[in-house]
Amino acid sequence: MELEPRTFEDVPGEVGLVEWKDFVSHKPLRFESGEQLPGFTLRYETYGKLNADKSNAILICHALSGDHHAAGVHRLRDRKTGWWNNIIGPGKPIDTTRFFVICSNCIGGCQGSSGPSSINPETGNPYNLDFPIVTIADMVNAQHRLMTDGFGIERLFAVIGGSMGGMQALQWAISYPDALDRLLPLATTARQGAQTIAFNAVGRVSIIQDPDWNDGNYDHDHGPDVGLSVARMMAHITYLSDKGMDEKFGRERVHSTDARGRFGAEFQVESYLRYQGQSFINRFDANTYLYLTKALDQFDLYGSSGKLEDALAVVKARTLVIGFTSDWLFPPEQNRAIVHALLRCGKQASYAELDMSLGHDSFLVHTPELYELVHRFLN
Amino acid sequence: MELEPRTFEDVPGEVGLVEWKDFVSHKPLRFESGEQLPGFTLRYETYGKLNADKSNAILICHALSGDHHAAGVHRLRDRKTGWWNNIIGPGKPIDTTRFFVICSNCIGGCQGSSGPSSINPETGNPYNLDFPIVTIADMVNAQHRLMTDGFGIERLFAVIGGSMGGMQALQWAISYPDALDRLLPLATTARQGAQTIAFNAVGRVSIIQDPDWNDGNYDHDHGPDVGLSVARMMAHITYLSDKGMDEKFGRERVHSTDARGRFGAEFQVESYLRYQGQSFINRFDANTYLYLTKALDQFDLYGSSGKLEDALAVVKARTLVIGFTSDWLFPPEQNRAIVHALLRCGKQASYAELDMSLGHDSFLVHTPELYELVHRFLN
Repeated sequence: MELEPRTFEDVPGEVGLVEWKDFVSHKPLRFESGEQLPGFTLRYETYGKLNADKSNAILICHALSGDHHAAGVHRLRDRKTGWWNNIIGPGKPIDTTRFFVICSNCIGGCQGSSGPSSINPETGNPYNLDFPIVTIADMVNAQHRLMTDGFGIERLFAVIGGSMGGMQALQWAISYPDALDRLLPLATTARQGAQTIAFNAVGRVSIIQDPDWNDGNYDHDHGPDVGLSVARMMAHITYLSDKGMDEKFGRERVHSTDARGRFGAEFQVESYLRYQGQSFINRFDANTYLYLTKALDQFDLYGSSGKLEDALAVVKARTLVIGFTSDWLFPPEQNRAIVHALLRCGKQASYAELDMSLGHDSFLVHTPELYELVHRFLN
Repeated sequence: MELEPRTFEDVPGEVGLVEWKDFVSHKPLRFESGEQLPGFTLRYETYGKLNADKSNAILICHALSGDHHAAGVHRLRDRKTGWWNNIIGPGKPIDTTRFFVICSNCIGGCQGSSGPSSINPETGNPYNLDFPIVTIADMVNAQHRLMTDGFGIERLFAVIGGSMGGMQALQWAISYPDALDRLLPLATTARQGAQTIAFNAVGRVSIIQDPDWNDGNYDHDHGPDVGLSVARMMAHITYLSDKGMDEKFGRERVHSTDARGRFGAEFQVESYLRYQGQSFINRFDANTYLYLTKALDQFDLYGSSGKLEDALAVVKARTLVIGFTSDWLFPPEQNRAIVHALLRCGKQASYAELDMSLGHDSFLVHTPELYELVHRFLN
């Protein structure tokens, strides 16, 4: 029999039991595309306490498949904590005894915020492809509404995010330069190259070619699961690294009983990826996958001039960018380029590169060196 | 109006018009799995003339999606030549005025050789998954039958192949050490790592999860096209490189008329990959894709001892291995490891690494440096 912790205080250093909330804005939200919603919802969680002068708030921006549940547990018996529980908590690098930490599911998402799977009040059916095209700047505009109208926060202590979350963090410093003191993007890029666009594009084709996609108008109990699971499996490879996968899986076989038939999962890496693909379809909406990968692909701070400095000239936040040597999705040189451009603009910026073998997902795993960098940057 | 060349002599330096032939063996072929075929067919082409003492034959082994059509054209008006036409021909590095060049579609293939889509004489229907599991050694055993029973050739001047063709070349030197003088594997590996297995595994899942796969028993006019095209698109990314794709496509958009709907192909790289996926389903069988990727994944010259030397100890051929710096599918270090192991065994072997940005497919493109290496190795 397993013992359940009675209260979250039983787990020292942990955020413990948390609840999500919904912020509902009844004011219209205009998207970059020109499309508009009459209002919207952002689902969010907070950890720690907002101080009297509202100066201790940190916004965490999540990656493509992440959500608002960044730390703690929803039920005391949950084994799985929020996605960045290792870095957020009392005494942890993002210290909830000092900071008020906010994480919201992005607009366009499928974990409670308004997105393609939300009900369109005008029709009573899901928006599906009638949902406006979402950009990284749109995500930031919706989050800004949550900060100002939801919390009355005019200035964030910091905005932090990895991968797509790093793009949002960068965009915050550009769209609202006076609204943040510190900027910490990790494992990110100011624009993706052709190879990363290509992987996203194949993921999208996998979904839209699935007959169950039905031009986006699928029944949400019977969506394009095959297409979505294949997209996820492929993308998952890009979040790891050659070396990391060799260390974790090598050429190990699964137990023979699992390797059914001629083309069952023979190698452990096959079995692992199949599990990743299957579990993803239970928690993620296929149209949201299309929308968010499109937002990633279209994000381009180099803009029409081809000069990153043009976009970053307005930045006021003190910046630390962290890249990871083995990240081949958003490789170190793309992270470094952001800091170089900031420095050319005369900004306060530094770059740290961590030598880890786990690839793009390195920012999510237990890394004392990363903790130290984040802790120091916030203190 | 386009002028057609009247005869292939009009195109100097070209192999010109070629015809495939079928070698039919009526003797049983026993596979590594223990399964057996009562006989089999290999479709092949030859270029140049076999000399009197049958000492000038070179065998070319093709890669996963290649076939027996390595050089020349089938009709004078064909715009597309065989897949290695740039290197095979009169006066070319593999000089058909001197050598008799043979290329056969591998066993398990779908371009005329016996494979899952061939008719099983016992049932009158395609074998589909009743076809024996194929390994690289099985491919070599079938080719050896073609050499000995088909041509009466006991000893090849050289065996040459890239990628999966390189695995076959290595296997030739191990299975039939006395049957070849020279061994030239390119862009290959003695065993794949976890990442490469993972990409193949996702390709297979994409096919077997396609409802039209039907446990392998699809109607060949209505196969798992969606799954196969997605598998091909993904694999195609792995044949190129980050840098090569940036140089070729960058973030260029397609003409707006092509980018239909919200999730049409917006970037040129998307459009290119969709075309690759679509054209592949017209020429390739999904079950063969499963069989051949499985052969790739199972190939392991390190064996149970984990020592490459144990497999390579029998090699007698003089060997040149060529790797390509930007090949991240079968990376340079895996190519180099083969030569290091041969040298540790006291064999005659050398390694060349070409600095090209095109990734794994570098061995297929116009490269004077490669031509020079191949020419010198054969002379």
